[in-house]
Amino acid sequence: MVKLTQRLGGLVLRFAAFCAALGAVIAMITSRERSSFFVISLVAKYSDLAAFKYFVIANAIVTVYSFLVLFLPKESLLWKFVVVLDLMVTMLLTSSLSAAVAVAQVGKRGNANAGWLPICGQVPRFCDQITGALIAGLVALVLYVFLLIFSIHHVVDPFLLRKS
Amino acid sequence: MVKLTQRLGGLVLRFAAFCAALGAVIAMITSRERSSFFVISLVAKYSDLAAFKYFVIANAIVTVYSFLVLFLPKESLLWKFVVVLDLMVTMLLTSSLSAAVAVAQVGKRGNANAGWLPICGQVPRFCDQITGALIAGLVALVLYVFLLIFSIHHVVDPFLLRKS
Repeated sequence: MVKLTQRLGGLVLRFAAFCAALGAVIAMITSRERSSFFVISLVAKYSDLAAFKYFVIANAIVTVYSFLVLFLPKESLLWKFVVVLDLMVTMLLTSSLSAAVAVAQVGKRGNANAGWLPICGQVPRFCDQITGALIAGLVALVLYVFLLIFSIHHVVDPFLLRKS
Repeated sequence: MVKLTQRLGGLVLRFAAFCAALGAVIAMITSRERSSFFVISLVAKYSDLAAFKYFVIANAIVTVYSFLVLFLPKESLLWKFVVVLDLMVTMLLTSSLSAAVAVAQVGKRGNANAGWLPICGQVPRFCDQITGALIAGLVALVLYVFLLIFSIHHVVDPFLLRKS
């Protein structure tokens, strides 16, 4: 019975991570706002910044991976390899989220030392939607950290909970 | 004999990661360059950018952690918990490196869409030293990924190398 709940728990976490990563991708790629400045008219979109493109690519990879793993047969030996893939996916989410947050932070506050002005004043809705995408990316990351600690705990028992 | 080489291998990787993280901190905090622009004189330093401060804090934590783990007795049950700590450290290095690289990339190339000018033209030595610090941070990260896969392999055998 315990094995079944563990397996179901894992699948639910994975499906939730799939939804979060997919939501992050959709929110990011649909973020777009036109802003006019005297005679100049600009359109802010996610592809204007490399870190946001990296975020979309990373979360798209995680979306596909999470979906495929849902269909892996229970007895498959590949589950052992999934632990390492989960580690790589967790690092990819960590990396892409951190890069996007670092650049979004510059976009929101600017940087006087580097002479970079904030942009969110001109395109507030664009920035709000980017923030939404980053939150969805954070949810996917937290779920994958749980999945990873769950896999490591299931095998390594780092919290010494099992009676030896 | 195999157990001894594995243990020694782990300690050597950890000591190398300690040196790399320490090098990343030193290179980042000593990066400083004065630049004059007509009558304005500016000093570029790492603390001008939040992502670089985050990079220093993260690598300082990793330096202390790597040093302490070197002295953990072989038989200690804490080694089981070190696997989870190694995961957290790997994520911290991934996150801080990605944030710093994202902002450094804006510093090097600027971003026309956001109206952010590159700064490395005015402070080339500062940017070169930042690049050196990021490379040291990458070395520390790669070493920790090896350590983590080494720990997971040692316990989980994800590559199915052991004859069952």
